[in-house]
Amino acid sequence: MNEVEARERAATMLAEAGIALTPGERDAIEVADFGLGRLDEIGLQIVVYVNTERVCAKELVLFPGQTCPEHRHPPVGDDPGKEETFRCRTGSVELHVEGHDTVTLRPGAQFTIMPDTLHWFRAGDEGAIVTEFSTRSRDETDVFTDPRIVR
Amino acid sequence: MNEVEARERAATMLAEAGIALTPGERDAIEVADFGLGRLDEIGLQIVVYVNTERVCAKELVLFPGQTCPEHRHPPVGDDPGKEETFRCRTGSVELHVEGHDTVTLRPGAQFTIMPDTLHWFRAGDEGAIVTEFSTRSRDETDVFTDPRIVR
Repeated sequence: MNEVEARERAATMLAEAGIALTPGERDAIEVADFGLGRLDEIGLQIVVYVNTERVCAKELVLFPGQTCPEHRHPPVGDDPGKEETFRCRTGSVELHVEGHDTVTLRPGAQFTIMPDTLHWFRAGDEGAIVTEFSTRSRDETDVFTDPRIVR
Repeated sequence: MNEVEARERAATMLAEAGIALTPGERDAIEVADFGLGRLDEIGLQIVVYVNTERVCAKELVLFPGQTCPEHRHPPVGDDPGKEETFRCRTGSVELHVEGHDTVTLRPGAQFTIMPDTLHWFRAGDEGAIVTEFSTRSRDETDVFTDPRIVR
């Protein structure tokens, strides 16, 4: 699967879930392979709805078995780091958060991850759509456990 | 329409839109009549997903023609006031924001309202579901233009 195919597939999943996007948003779906070139296993498709100084919201789309690798959102200047709530919309996602038992989120379930806390997640057999409600995103400052990762 | 009927109707609209709620969230849908007792015309149904010190997210449900009356979110202590982005999920909503042209949001369209800015909104003929992404909600400090309103 290449980037164009991943974008198309994510758009289809969102449409099937009844989540409306503008044509511009559909074209701008971000496909993150984290620099590893193994999109089928490790990757994430992202629609950024808003990202102001104070508030960010995204739709995260994961294909069956796809993993977002372990990382944390460290403090940056006056910002204590990104706080994020994941709310599962469709499918299922297994969420691993430092200091917590592993939890499987299904539609309607959610989990809040506090700043600077290691976490990673993997979609179940149907894939997953997860809405993320958070403070400002600064992806370039995320710290990944795997040193080969480039965000 | 009374509060129980409004809650039931909002739950049905959310289910029809494919938006999953837990049973607890369904039971806790807030029905706001703003103390006016005219829920058919002036009111709002709300699911609060999360409301931490930094981040809030809600689903707002409006019935056909229902209006959320004019108000603003003033600064409170160190908080400059609530910033909120409305993203239309289903139906349509006419949004009136101080200093801006009136805009009609349809599915996939959104608008960000800065702190302390007067705004009100009314659903179109099909009603509307609107996701709100914002900083912390402090409903009790909202300032309504109509002095009869009690939040």
